[in-house]
Amino acid sequence: MIEDKNPLRTPIEQLGEFGLIDHITKNFATQNAGTVRAIGDDAAVIKHDKHTVVTTDMLVEGIHFDLSYVPLKHLGYKAVMVNLSDVYAMNAIATQVTVSIAISNRFPVEAVEELYDGIALACQNYGVDLIGGDTTASNSGLIISVTALGEQEPDKIVYRSGAKDGDLLVVSGDVGAAYMGLQILEREKAVFKANPNNQPDIEAYSYLIERQLKPEARKDIPKLLEELDVLPTSMIDVSDGLSSEMIHLCKQSSVGMKIYEDKIPLDPTVISSCEEFNLDSTTVALSGGEDYELLFTVKQEDFPKIKANPNLSIIGHVLPQSDGIHLVTRGGEQVAIKAMGWNSFES
Amino acid sequence: MIEDKNPLRTPIEQLGEFGLIDHITKNFATQNAGTVRAIGDDAAVIKHDKHTVVTTDMLVEGIHFDLSYVPLKHLGYKAVMVNLSDVYAMNAIATQVTVSIAISNRFPVEAVEELYDGIALACQNYGVDLIGGDTTASNSGLIISVTALGEQEPDKIVYRSGAKDGDLLVVSGDVGAAYMGLQILEREKAVFKANPNNQPDIEAYSYLIERQLKPEARKDIPKLLEELDVLPTSMIDVSDGLSSEMIHLCKQSSVGMKIYEDKIPLDPTVISSCEEFNLDSTTVALSGGEDYELLFTVKQEDFPKIKANPNLSIIGHVLPQSDGIHLVTRGGEQVAIKAMGWNSFES
Repeated sequence: MIEDKNPLRTPIEQLGEFGLIDHITKNFATQNAGTVRAIGDDAAVIKHDKHTVVTTDMLVEGIHFDLSYVPLKHLGYKAVMVNLSDVYAMNAIATQVTVSIAISNRFPVEAVEELYDGIALACQNYGVDLIGGDTTASNSGLIISVTALGEQEPDKIVYRSGAKDGDLLVVSGDVGAAYMGLQILEREKAVFKANPNNQPDIEAYSYLIERQLKPEARKDIPKLLEELDVLPTSMIDVSDGLSSEMIHLCKQSSVGMKIYEDKIPLDPTVISSCEEFNLDSTTVALSGGEDYELLFTVKQEDFPKIKANPNLSIIGHVLPQSDGIHLVTRGGEQVAIKAMGWNSFES
Repeated sequence: MIEDKNPLRTPIEQLGEFGLIDHITKNFATQNAGTVRAIGDDAAVIKHDKHTVVTTDMLVEGIHFDLSYVPLKHLGYKAVMVNLSDVYAMNAIATQVTVSIAISNRFPVEAVEELYDGIALACQNYGVDLIGGDTTASNSGLIISVTALGEQEPDKIVYRSGAKDGDLLVVSGDVGAAYMGLQILEREKAVFKANPNNQPDIEAYSYLIERQLKPEARKDIPKLLEELDVLPTSMIDVSDGLSSEMIHLCKQSSVGMKIYEDKIPLDPTVISSCEEFNLDSTTVALSGGEDYELLFTVKQEDFPKIKANPNLSIIGHVLPQSDGIHLVTRGGEQVAIKAMGWNSFES
């Protein structure tokens, strides 16, 4: 059998900017009644009856992702997820996104299609409409800039600033896995570079890698909390690591916090891979980031409503600001928490 | 007197991502009642009573701008303008923007400040609130991604699709100047490269250069049309050149159009610089782009309301689709108009 060594590579110039936009957006149908007009005019038109939340994030090649191991479809999916995660962190319903990309003209149309396949899948899975964007050339790497919109009743929007002394600190799902997934991918890349014939064995790490490459925003959590009749007092999504997010909540709510090491939810594969990499799993959970879980505070009286829920872990509580922010270790020691989150400007 | 050869250059790492955001956004006050919460949470919160329009544009170094002659403050201003222009092209009022930037960490904080000075000035001049954004590192050039929001009553939003046979084609201001400004700047750059001691003499071209470096979106036009009691049947902003915009209107309205060469509004300096550069001024007007004027159609019965207005030029009219899109030259010849707008993917 003759192998096709030249997969389809249609140059973007062949379609031009408008042709490319037509081509990649023709399969995007809208699903929200609030989307009055999507792609195709100077601006999209939407109608929100409640308050509108707006958030934006930019992903830059070489800073946020490495195309040597990130499939473009996953990248498109993740670019939407990181934005939806911010919408859910406001306790809002995500409704629309715009997606702008800057791409090298060495990218074939098929690569752009893969990227948009991921974007389309994310929109479909999360009930969100793609309503606009911009497609431009780049002299260097790939850039994806997404803006997400959502809506919610004014009195149900949850800010970072509402945590009160005595509230419980809760996190959804588990943390640290996305960071360990990145470690695995970086190791396999190094192994591959040293010996391209070496087939990576990543089966055992599939959960970690999936958390890194294809995170899911917690659309279910605002819904679950509504069903449980719990309105968080403050909320943030875990993009930079638990410690960084706790500091944000504390700073904006003018409170202190205590988090208990033994309460932090870790997947067993995070623990085993941390041992393998000789990393401390608590440090990974606190500083790893990219988990896209929700970290929030609830009133103590809501404890019975959430205590048995398998999606939620109570990991600490809120204190007066003067008490500071501490981790209580398994040994009972108190360690001050400082920002250790991810900083793209560190050299 | 000792000259300071080392202007302030504070490394961004010194502030970190959050420090940088705090630093550059601390002077941004909000002015719209609809802005419930601006920067500082997972998402901004806004309240629009009418329909919301949303548009986004990305500017990429080396593709859309050349930092060797574009001052950062102007660039920040222009990045907001190109987006507001799209809002006005929907006949809406611009209310909020988000601004995301990717910058090399070799950029000092002072450079980011300059960029944001321009963004702040644009927001102030146009009554728009900066409500969010993202600030990240870039391995290569500077990228600016802006999303603009605006609002308007549903029945006053003007789409590209409403032009009807018999309507008049109108453009605001004059066209072609931004493109000629770019030619001047490129020429001066080449002259400077050849002889760095050569002081450029650009006084005579100040209008052209200003149109290129510091365009103003036509916030005044929707307001003027409202005062004149004229609701355009279709509208688009002139970012890629008149011919490209006419094609968009025709395609989306399923109509044809005729534009008259002798009616196209040109500033005298466009005509004189075209002679100097041996360029045809009509071609420049049709294909130059970046004018950020508004091109729209109105019903014939509105003719008396707009005919004497110095801000508006009637340059043609709408025909049935089967008549195609033509330029009527000064000599009375009809030339078919094809897309000649700017395409960032052309190599």
